[in-house]
Amino acid sequence: MKLGDLGEFGFIERIRAAAASGEGVCSGIGDDCAVLELPPGHRLLTTKDLLIEGIHFDRAWIDSRCLGRKSVSVNVSDIAAMGGRPRHLYLGLGVPNDFSVEQLQLFMDGFLEAVSEYGAFLVGGDTCRSPGPLLISVTAEGSVPAGREICRAGASVGQDIYVSGTLGDSALALSRLGAGMSVDPWLASRHHDPTARVALGQALAEKGLAAAMIDVSDGLLADLGHILKASAVGALLEERQLPLSKAFRAVLEQDLQQMQLALSGGEDYELLFTASPERRAELDVLARSLDLSLTRIGIVTSAGDGLRLRHVDGHVRHADSRGFNHFANSGHTNPQQ
Amino acid sequence: MKLGDLGEFGFIERIRAAAASGEGVCSGIGDDCAVLELPPGHRLLTTKDLLIEGIHFDRAWIDSRCLGRKSVSVNVSDIAAMGGRPRHLYLGLGVPNDFSVEQLQLFMDGFLEAVSEYGAFLVGGDTCRSPGPLLISVTAEGSVPAGREICRAGASVGQDIYVSGTLGDSALALSRLGAGMSVDPWLASRHHDPTARVALGQALAEKGLAAAMIDVSDGLLADLGHILKASAVGALLEERQLPLSKAFRAVLEQDLQQMQLALSGGEDYELLFTASPERRAELDVLARSLDLSLTRIGIVTSAGDGLRLRHVDGHVRHADSRGFNHFANSGHTNPQQ
Repeated sequence: MKLGDLGEFGFIERIRAAAASGEGVCSGIGDDCAVLELPPGHRLLTTKDLLIEGIHFDRAWIDSRCLGRKSVSVNVSDIAAMGGRPRHLYLGLGVPNDFSVEQLQLFMDGFLEAVSEYGAFLVGGDTCRSPGPLLISVTAEGSVPAGREICRAGASVGQDIYVSGTLGDSALALSRLGAGMSVDPWLASRHHDPTARVALGQALAEKGLAAAMIDVSDGLLADLGHILKASAVGALLEERQLPLSKAFRAVLEQDLQQMQLALSGGEDYELLFTASPERRAELDVLARSLDLSLTRIGIVTSAGDGLRLRHVDGHVRHADSRGFNHFANSGHTNPQQ
Repeated sequence: MKLGDLGEFGFIERIRAAAASGEGVCSGIGDDCAVLELPPGHRLLTTKDLLIEGIHFDRAWIDSRCLGRKSVSVNVSDIAAMGGRPRHLYLGLGVPNDFSVEQLQLFMDGFLEAVSEYGAFLVGGDTCRSPGPLLISVTAEGSVPAGREICRAGASVGQDIYVSGTLGDSALALSRLGAGMSVDPWLASRHHDPTARVALGQALAEKGLAAAMIDVSDGLLADLGHILKASAVGALLEERQLPLSKAFRAVLEQDLQQMQLALSGGEDYELLFTASPERRAELDVLARSLDLSLTRIGIVTSAGDGLRLRHVDGHVRHADSRGFNHFANSGHTNPQQ
């Protein structure tokens, strides 16, 4: 960590202290590399996300502490989506001159708090001045028992499609913030402070319950599209089954068009996975034990079907990753299909 | 890799192809995480560097292909400095609108070429538009046999201090470029296309030859200072022994003040390490086998001595990380000390 050029801040020592110890961490911050050990028989999972002010976030809409937390969660969500346990976080920060020491401390408070909540450790990084926007580059490493990782390519015809939690809250919060409207605090937190579904991902991997999995970051249709492409299959989704929060339903009652946000909004950070119908009872038990809803929203079909959506009105339409208004093939099809 | 928002470029497929296979790579680009396997009994080494246009580089002075190569080398150098073998690279890119597709392709050419030369694989990353400068965020992972990693804290009194290659070339090239002067191509390449000393680092770790090690990125005095602090020791350096290239000596003959660049210039990416005097013969053999000079430039002393430098004129002065003109303690001391 080269924080020296930012001046002397108390949190440098805080970062070192927070990074000093932890299972599997032989040496954290303070050498050329972090030195780490994975449990025998485990594979390494690594993901990396770049968050750039003006592209991925607007400092006017998110406070620094939430930004720190979210920077961790969006990376940890990728580990969760493989069924892994998050272990090591690395933070690269490019700090513009107008980002105050107080904001930086709040950012680090949030970052370290989230790292700790996920049972991981901050073990390295790089910090410098930015001549332009605030730049946040996070790398997350995790582990998974060898062969238990859940990839996008595992879906096969006849499997159920599940999603955790509720969809569209984050996009709804963002659209209201963008329009200068008031946002319910719970809804706002779904956008500003999402939760990576780590316990769910790990349980699905350990029990071998999920065949293919991804986290919903680009939107339900886009991310399901990634699974379908990687697995060479199609899908039929049931719009009526999509899990929606009370806050989302309240808005939907005023404007049915908002359903689009549940389908294509993105940044839900829920887990989307496929599973054999034989595992339904086990998945019900798991959902109860985690106190997290797992909703069956469709089935895997053959590749030629593409991605189809049965609307509330019973009509089945081809969907593409941008939503049901953009027809990939024939447009309207028979609702009985 | 989210390259979609940059448009359709042929190199997306090149990146996927380059990332598709390799020892220990179970799954590269195309899932939520890369899935990787380290050899049994090895530890994971991870480092992360942020390179920001206007802070770390100037596109007017470095061509895109060299920038791609250097982005790899500066990270791999941190793996080398622990005695590790580089394995997995991750590239985060924030691309400004005025960076052309041709420049991007040259950058990727250089990046992939260097990754391949170091025997590593590009297995993940994240790419998006930048509203400001070009942003390059690289993460490198490597491996080292457990317990063989060479940390900064291993130096002890009486050990020799060695540095590989020559010092000051990179800083000299940069200072001449900055002054609009002509630069010898070899000298320029020392700045634009440094070589991480991977084979040396690995050999030192495998044979247990080095007690403490770091790569020279901030400058000889600053980086030796990191070893001294971590190891709680002092050092006496011999200015006369500093390894200087022919190009550097030619400039030094015109202006003795340029010696400062060999001491404090930085970006040499040579390895600086300490070793027991009993290992001198083995180090000579290793240097010959690698066809790389290893120069003994001083000895480790007790912590109270701090970092001292014996100048060519015989005077011993206390040095600090910024160079010998900034006296840390008493300034001039007896040359016989």
